[in-house]
Amino acid sequence: MAAPIQFSLSATDGMARTGQIVTAHGAIATPVFMPVGTRAAVKAMAPDELWAMGLRIVLANAYHLLVRPGPELIHELGGVGRFMGFPGAVLTDSGGFQAMSLAKLNSIDESGIRFRSHLDGAAITLTAESAVSLQETLGSDIMMSLDECTPYPATHERARASLELTARWAERGLRARVSTTQALFGIVQGGIYADLRKTSAAQITALEFDGYAAGGLSVGEPKPAMYEMAALVAATLPADRPRYLMGVGTPADLVAAIGMGFDMFDCVLPTRNARNGGAFTSTGARSIKKALYARDDRPLDPGCGCRPCRTLSRAYLRHLFLSGEILAARALTEHNLHFYARLMQGAQAAIASRTFNAYANSIKAGFAAGETGG
Amino acid sequence: MAAPIQFSLSATDGMARTGQIVTAHGAIATPVFMPVGTRAAVKAMAPDELWAMGLRIVLANAYHLLVRPGPELIHELGGVGRFMGFPGAVLTDSGGFQAMSLAKLNSIDESGIRFRSHLDGAAITLTAESAVSLQETLGSDIMMSLDECTPYPATHERARASLELTARWAERGLRARVSTTQALFGIVQGGIYADLRKTSAAQITALEFDGYAAGGLSVGEPKPAMYEMAALVAATLPADRPRYLMGVGTPADLVAAIGMGFDMFDCVLPTRNARNGGAFTSTGARSIKKALYARDDRPLDPGCGCRPCRTLSRAYLRHLFLSGEILAARALTEHNLHFYARLMQGAQAAIASRTFNAYANSIKAGFAAGETGG
Repeated sequence: MAAPIQFSLSATDGMARTGQIVTAHGAIATPVFMPVGTRAAVKAMAPDELWAMGLRIVLANAYHLLVRPGPELIHELGGVGRFMGFPGAVLTDSGGFQAMSLAKLNSIDESGIRFRSHLDGAAITLTAESAVSLQETLGSDIMMSLDECTPYPATHERARASLELTARWAERGLRARVSTTQALFGIVQGGIYADLRKTSAAQITALEFDGYAAGGLSVGEPKPAMYEMAALVAATLPADRPRYLMGVGTPADLVAAIGMGFDMFDCVLPTRNARNGGAFTSTGARSIKKALYARDDRPLDPGCGCRPCRTLSRAYLRHLFLSGEILAARALTEHNLHFYARLMQGAQAAIASRTFNAYANSIKAGFAAGETGG
Repeated sequence: MAAPIQFSLSATDGMARTGQIVTAHGAIATPVFMPVGTRAAVKAMAPDELWAMGLRIVLANAYHLLVRPGPELIHELGGVGRFMGFPGAVLTDSGGFQAMSLAKLNSIDESGIRFRSHLDGAAITLTAESAVSLQETLGSDIMMSLDECTPYPATHERARASLELTARWAERGLRARVSTTQALFGIVQGGIYADLRKTSAAQITALEFDGYAAGGLSVGEPKPAMYEMAALVAATLPADRPRYLMGVGTPADLVAAIGMGFDMFDCVLPTRNARNGGAFTSTGARSIKKALYARDDRPLDPGCGCRPCRTLSRAYLRHLFLSGEILAARALTEHNLHFYARLMQGAQAAIASRTFNAYANSIKAGFAAGETGG
């Protein structure tokens, strides 16, 4: 039986690697950044715009789709990708993180997570098994095991109990999987304890997942700890499966993690920052709110070829943002996602030409320079 | 000296006419619907999307641009069209209507309107002269005279005083105009009194405006009164200048008004209704909120070729709307504006082929049918 996805590498440079993941909904060049489409929509974007900027995979949240519009409706309408009009692949998370953070009256035990919908208070239980069948019903191309995202801070004892639970859930989820066309990834936990990260990685990689993820990072821990844990996990994951660093991060974080050998990323940063007036550019981060831009006729990033940069000035974007116009959120989101997509394309090319180190340093330098208005 | 705009007719059918207005920023086929871009942005739309659907003129509000970002800034950045990244023409209203309805502590006398900005309370006076120079600074292609929009209901005496003031302002504004490239339109008032509408039309058309508008309609009066007044005004306006019916209306209103001989329209209906979940389709109005559409995989309007109808289902749009996703507002706005643009193209073609009556009846029948889910 063929695996649900095929992963192949075309080049490596140090620990960094480039290649592709072939899914039931097309091929994805790696390293890849997946925009977050919480409710089966990347906020402010249309699906054909995502496709047009070269994005071939988006993330959706199983928890949100469970509470509205419900997995059966999405299944009936052809699965989450077809439902949202996106011709590429979709990765869904298990819903566990949102069930713990967003839902009301949640409790967690061996069987799973019990919670009440934040919309209507309906009682819902997400087990290791039902989290997988939920995602199978949603029809995503890559599914994630139910895990407990260990909070920060957590004691060593708490973090150990958490990763052990995650490992038991991982095994149960894998056994429960029925689909032969949807990949399932396991998630390594362990907080910021190196020994626990190693234990968790050994447990999870002993299970035949189609890919492996590092979870529980970028949850409030100091950045050096995040980098140390991420590097440690990447080094212990098998080379022949995709490695996914969940919930990370800034452009500098991304090139650092690519340098550790991660292949897949997701983060709300480019989309959420956009709605707050923040833009990522080749010369650093900008806040379009600043008076500095009031009469600035230049595009957000003169080196950028995205649609907003071809048509709208900083002065106009600032006016739109201050006026609360939807177009401000749209334009900044489109620009930021284009920036992240280009960042990944640049990394792929740099790895192929064995110049990734220089590329990573140039990205880090751009964001170290700070905001100058230039 | 050449007139700021050239207006020519290519065909008539009964009172209905089709032709074009050539402005400093391109030609506009008439009859034309101008989407409302209050703050130099048509809510939820990007300027290149408006252009792509064939729209060649948009409306912006002088009052809103006066209070933010200010006319000097817009002038410095090349005028309102260039500022908003729209390559076509822009019509600005005088700001008088908004100064009376939105601003605080407003008062009106012979000289003009005194008010405080709804944003920061700054004291501002708009006179017959400054309303024109404000619009000249904004750089719109078609400017509107300062008028008093007679409220409904108003006594005959009040309506007469109001139209007399409007006539004196019209004359002062015309004298104050400096620009040779920006057209200036006069506005007929008179409430719902036929004798006063005739008086006002005689006064305003005695002045050498580049076009003439019927104002003070669709402000709460019964629809038969609106139709009667609009027809009366259209019949008394000169045939060789564009006729603009301000603030109207529904698809049925528009074909009725085209049948009276009007050439230009603006209304918030397609854009505002969209943000409230309302769609105009060839078989009538729909509210995407309805449970009826929860599992409906069809596009909003199977007969429509707009981008949302090519890519998104009713079920998905309903999910987006209920989830408060920006894409719901975007998709419905784009669809509705596309519907209005097609409505005008259909009217132009029907007038050219002398079949306008049948066309108008088919539009009215579509909206009389009500919502069936079909």
